Amino acid sequence: MPFHASVLTLYPEMFPGPLGVSLAGRALERGDWRLEARQIRDHGIGRHRTVDDTPAGGSPGMVLRPDVLAEAIDAATPDGDARPRLLMSPRGRPLDQARVREIAAGPGAVIVCGRFEGVDERVIEARALEEVSIGDYILSGGEMAALVLLDAVVRLLPGVMGNAQSGQTESFEDGLLEHPHYTRPAVWEGREIPPVLASGHHGAVERWRREAAERLTAERRPDLWARRKTTKS
Amino acid sequence: MPFHASVLTLYPEMFPGPLGVSLAGRALERGDWRLEARQIRDHGIGRHRTVDDTPAGGSPGMVLRPDVLAEAIDAATPDGDARPRLLMSPRGRPLDQARVREIAAGPGAVIVCGRFEGVDERVIEARALEEVSIGDYILSGGEMAALVLLDAVVRLLPGVMGNAQSGQTESFEDGLLEHPHYTRPAVWEGREIPPVLASGHHGAVERWRREAAERLTAERRPDLWARRKTTKS
Repeated sequence: MPFHASVLTLYPEMFPGPLGVSLAGRALERGDWRLEARQIRDHGIGRHRTVDDTPAGGSPGMVLRPDVLAEAIDAATPDGDARPRLLMSPRGRPLDQARVREIAAGPGAVIVCGRFEGVDERVIEARALEEVSIGDYILSGGEMAALVLLDAVVRLLPGVMGNAQSGQTESFEDGLLEHPHYTRPAVWEGREIPPVLASGHHGAVERWRREAAERLTAERRPDLWARRKTTKS
Repeated sequence: MPFHASVLTLYPEMFPGPLGVSLAGRALERGDWRLEARQIRDHGIGRHRTVDDTPAGGSPGMVLRPDVLAEAIDAATPDGDARPRLLMSPRGRPLDQARVREIAAGPGAVIVCGRFEGVDERVIEARALEEVSIGDYILSGGEMAALVLLDAVVRLLPGVMGNAQSGQTESFEDGLLEHPHYTRPAVWEGREIPPVLASGHHGAVERWRREAAERLTAERRPDLWARRKTTKS
């Protein structure tokens, strides 16, 4: 069974969107993964298919109703469905490459996209939704976050990436940012490629890259650098 | 002049994509912002419009050529163009809501989407590209990251968000995750809304929300919590 993603959203027309292009899109056509966008509003209440209501305690905005969302989740997850149920939310655990790998190694994912002010807390508890954040900024809804999560996951699925891109998989693997890259021309606008990269000395090239990656990480991401040193000691 | 985004990409067909739907899409139609997707390959070399070459020093993958990318950037940025030039890259400074606000307050953004193994370092230096990361995971390219950045920015532009969603702007503003939300029904699957939210006592509601947000932040995001305490003292 290929990786199976079910996205619960009020905007199913956003999918596959950019995931229908390039690597992910070709993989989708080949059947290397499966994507299903489900309209939450199909489980809305009454003639107007209402999905939200005002927040208890007052405040601007609207909140997704727990009964409507639970019904949408239940309809998407047959008994025994072992896929993780994710809620894209800035309150969630920050997504990292380790979690991306775990999800990619599993059977798929059920991804709930919040909109409006948020989602009733009770449905998060009752359906054991795992809140996932892609970063410390506010999006118009969970759809963009779902696209990002799926893009990161799909490129790791078997058969999706050609050998040409396999080197890229190493980023963040060792807790470092990537070293600088150079290609032709050898001199451009008076700027040269670092001579060691043209030396043909494989060991020296690797050493230079390692040191550059470490320097970059220490300078730009003291948080990653500190975590890495802690992990190693 | 409305906010003007120029995206440099090998996949212009990914734009506007999900940004053509919902809030951002209606704002685009109204002319509240402008989006231009420019094909880097139009500046490629020779009959095959080559844009990349093998990495100096060896390794799998391909690197975007500095001459090609610089020409694409120069063509998109007339003299005196004051827009920030961003390169979406996992090596960049992590995007946060403060940077989103700065970008939204400016004239627009030129956004370079990397693909393949990376971009020649010299063009980053020579064209003063600001590397921006949306999170610590690897995407198939910068396009998804550009969509996320633009979604976060566009919702802050004048006229884009209705009052209905204005409450949401407060997330991360005070360095806290958002408190839980509740709406109807009052009891669902045996789960009640916290009684204080139905008390009608505005001060008590605010206190409960504040304490819930603080508890959530301390539990889930000790990094944000620590930074906030540092900032306040």
